[in-house]
Amino acid sequence: MLPRDYADQNCSIARTLEVAGDRWTLLIVRDAFFAGITRFGDFQARLDIARDVLADRLGRLTDDGIFERRVYQDRPVRHEYLLTDKGRDLVPVLVAMVEWGDRYHAPGGPPREIVHTDCGGAVELRLTCGACHADVGPRPRQITSRPGPASRQPQPVTAS
Amino acid sequence: MLPRDYADQNCSIARTLEVAGDRWTLLIVRDAFFAGITRFGDFQARLDIARDVLADRLGRLTDDGIFERRVYQDRPVRHEYLLTDKGRDLVPVLVAMVEWGDRYHAPGGPPREIVHTDCGGAVELRLTCGACHADVGPRPRQITSRPGPASRQPQPVTAS
Repeated sequence: MLPRDYADQNCSIARTLEVAGDRWTLLIVRDAFFAGITRFGDFQARLDIARDVLADRLGRLTDDGIFERRVYQDRPVRHEYLLTDKGRDLVPVLVAMVEWGDRYHAPGGPPREIVHTDCGGAVELRLTCGACHADVGPRPRQITSRPGPASRQPQPVTAS
Repeated sequence: MLPRDYADQNCSIARTLEVAGDRWTLLIVRDAFFAGITRFGDFQARLDIARDVLADRLGRLTDDGIFERRVYQDRPVRHEYLLTDKGRDLVPVLVAMVEWGDRYHAPGGPPREIVHTDCGGAVELRLTCGACHADVGPRPRQITSRPGPASRQPQPVTAS
């Protein structure tokens, strides 16, 4: 129903949603990062997702460089899917979602906690100003946006 | 095609995706926050979205408490949609998407920059440890998750 790309949207949010806007996509990245899942059958079991949908999403994620596909068994040939650096860099999106979901849709408290591996402390997401180092937040209005260097350039979405 | 809820997923990411996982949804929140859009026709013009799809999304977002609907004209009656605190709290998700999109899908540089209103400095997203105050990031592996207080409770998704 929705187009996969928003050709006239020169916007990094829209472009991210093109690649990772599907709901299953981010749940697949979640399970790869936080649960260390790499194999088709394990994703399928955890997500309760149809085989064809999962195959489609893993194929797209591999094409988009979020996963790398590697043979782990020869007879029969079987592949595993390893999160790339580009894939791991989606984790802040997941952390932002966890914080929002924990705040507004977790009446019994957080289902899971995201913690610093070294010390076990809770990981917190902060928006800070790179110039004055103030903590900034969406409420009250401390954030705005302005045209960037590429604001007037038409850009191919799939270029890297 | 996809179910709107993942009943057996006791996870704040899955719950956030139920509410805000649709691609249009986050673009609507984007335009409300960064462009100050409040009116149906203005959302429609900016997003180039079908009227019925936009009406559906704004209706859901209002039901979910992300927008508040307010009459701004009596004859004929017209409504505007105002982002709530809950809606503004989705902005860190958008900022995380901007950073990822800027890094991987903006070959000509960022289309727009997110800046601190007071001083004009660039807004940066940081993941920090609440205990030891270290900056943590998804690469190398400094982040993990563990069961939280509500890990074993079945929870209604729509409770607030």
